Amino acid sequence: MPRERETGSLTDVDGVLVGHHRRAGRGWQTGTTVVNVPNGAVCAVDVRGGGPGTRETDALAPGNLVDRVHAVCLSGGSAYGLATADGVMAELERRHLGVPVGPEPEHVVPVVPTAVVFDLGRGGTFTNRPTAEFGSRAFRDAGRRPKRGAVGAGTGARAGGLQGGVGMASATVDIAGSTVRVAALAVVNSSGCVIDPRTGSPWVDHPSLRRPTTDDRQAWRAWVHAQTAERQALNTTIGVVATDADLDRPEAGRVAMAAHDGLARAIRPAHALTDGDAIFTLATGARPLPDDRDGLVRSAASRSVALNAVAAAAAGVFALACTDAIVHATTLGDAPAYLDLCPGARRP
Amino acid sequence: MPRERETGSLTDVDGVLVGHHRRAGRGWQTGTTVVNVPNGAVCAVDVRGGGPGTRETDALAPGNLVDRVHAVCLSGGSAYGLATADGVMAELERRHLGVPVGPEPEHVVPVVPTAVVFDLGRGGTFTNRPTAEFGSRAFRDAGRRPKRGAVGAGTGARAGGLQGGVGMASATVDIAGSTVRVAALAVVNSSGCVIDPRTGSPWVDHPSLRRPTTDDRQAWRAWVHAQTAERQALNTTIGVVATDADLDRPEAGRVAMAAHDGLARAIRPAHALTDGDAIFTLATGARPLPDDRDGLVRSAASRSVALNAVAAAAAGVFALACTDAIVHATTLGDAPAYLDLCPGARRP
Repeated sequence: MPRERETGSLTDVDGVLVGHHRRAGRGWQTGTTVVNVPNGAVCAVDVRGGGPGTRETDALAPGNLVDRVHAVCLSGGSAYGLATADGVMAELERRHLGVPVGPEPEHVVPVVPTAVVFDLGRGGTFTNRPTAEFGSRAFRDAGRRPKRGAVGAGTGARAGGLQGGVGMASATVDIAGSTVRVAALAVVNSSGCVIDPRTGSPWVDHPSLRRPTTDDRQAWRAWVHAQTAERQALNTTIGVVATDADLDRPEAGRVAMAAHDGLARAIRPAHALTDGDAIFTLATGARPLPDDRDGLVRSAASRSVALNAVAAAAAGVFALACTDAIVHATTLGDAPAYLDLCPGARRP
Repeated sequence: MPRERETGSLTDVDGVLVGHHRRAGRGWQTGTTVVNVPNGAVCAVDVRGGGPGTRETDALAPGNLVDRVHAVCLSGGSAYGLATADGVMAELERRHLGVPVGPEPEHVVPVVPTAVVFDLGRGGTFTNRPTAEFGSRAFRDAGRRPKRGAVGAGTGARAGGLQGGVGMASATVDIAGSTVRVAALAVVNSSGCVIDPRTGSPWVDHPSLRRPTTDDRQAWRAWVHAQTAERQALNTTIGVVATDADLDRPEAGRVAMAAHDGLARAIRPAHALTDGDAIFTLATGARPLPDDRDGLVRSAASRSVALNAVAAAAAGVFALACTDAIVHATTLGDAPAYLDLCPGARRP
């Protein structure tokens, strides 16, 4: 089981960097987030939303050729935002990172799995969307201390009518004497609610929050009451789970699947036909899991026990990352941030 | 069963248009092909290669939101060529074609399923690849009398060491008193051979070909003998099956799957780990199939019998389209076209 549930960063996993680029104001409210793994990581994806916008996900299917990738791109712009991956590819190519396809080091094809959220028109102008340049800038911004909230792919995000954003969390899991790190980054842009409409508290507790004050609850109820049924647009929560465990691709796929359980706990409802919910796993492989694949659950040192622990932690950190996005959101456009509505819910 | 196996065009299916853009010479040998369905079509995909480069395929999964698309994009450039879809999206947006996402007619998100073939460096310069502009130009070229051979996405294609290209074929199938059209377009860029190395004849007969002459066979054997084992690059055969049958998405998926059987007959070996073989189905829906879904195979008027007939025809036309690509290929770069090596194999 996870030893701690700090609201750490995706970059708590060694070798994982995160960068953002956003444009807000003057008709714009959108952006792009890039997770960069300079030394590569095993990658898998689980797409559970009914309206996904994706790129390079078929390449990740178990049994297929590409095993390790160097970046995952998350962007606003709906399907138009898939263009941001072109910029990330250009940055990786410049660094000679990708599938080698020729005799020279620069002969590479970077595989950049990408998913997008719907935020068209949220800054006022329908045609203002992230371009390849956004992907390139987010890549170059990548570092170990990334921002969260209304940044990157979360810039134009909405979460149940509130300002959405980017959240992160991390945990460590003790497995057979080794400490494995599991972390998540979520871009929350959901038709479903992260905050319980009745109580004004999130479905999943967050260390930065406390019970809303009486004033908060009054403001919250007034806001909930004023909400009209949002038009069923193409909402989406996307994200990345990173771990230093040495998962293979099918295992990484199970971890992505488990992370959707965290999404389901933090956002209600989730996985709608009009959502494009998709979660990637990146496994750097620095920490070997037990290789007793026949032990099943009868041996505490079996690989399946270890994988279950990593998957359970992935669900936990992804759930917390979803709430973390709302905790760090700031009011940018016409949707209020949760803590602007309920300032007393912030733990002093 | 198919009534005829003419080497017709994908555009024999009413409402389906095909356009190409290519750039060849001065370091370039690549291009893009767009299949445009102005009134929309149900779309499905089957990806069978181990190294696919794709975009917007998750959106097509049965049960997901997007049911009809207006274009499929096929391109050279390996994963870099996925950028061509941006140009196709721009053209569709200009025409207000896509998923409606807002109150104005221009508020659309076009879904452009895309697959790419590996042709990097074939014109001499590794960094000369199709851009969004290629997608836009191929879209604007779309019409009812498309070219075939070393055009569009087939410009830089190789097929077992020969010049590859774009091929097409079509057939009609009588189903319960109605005539259904099934047609295919294949972009053949395979490590496997379309021509039997021992005989110099294609695995799948083509009406434009006859048995090679003695001179042809001598030239063929000399060429085969001189071939070194090709480096395992990311080869790929991609394509589209179009039909006017009113297939739903799962049915369209079965037709795409059947078309891979045609690919397997025409190209040997096929579906390798280093191939990205992917086939889309576009079903315009003008011809209703029987709706007796409980009849199974006991009733000649059952939907399953009709679907089997469409699927069998899809395999047939896709196989013929693969050979057709080689028949129409012309020598562009350093790989000879089949009929330049074996001119006597052309039926007078």
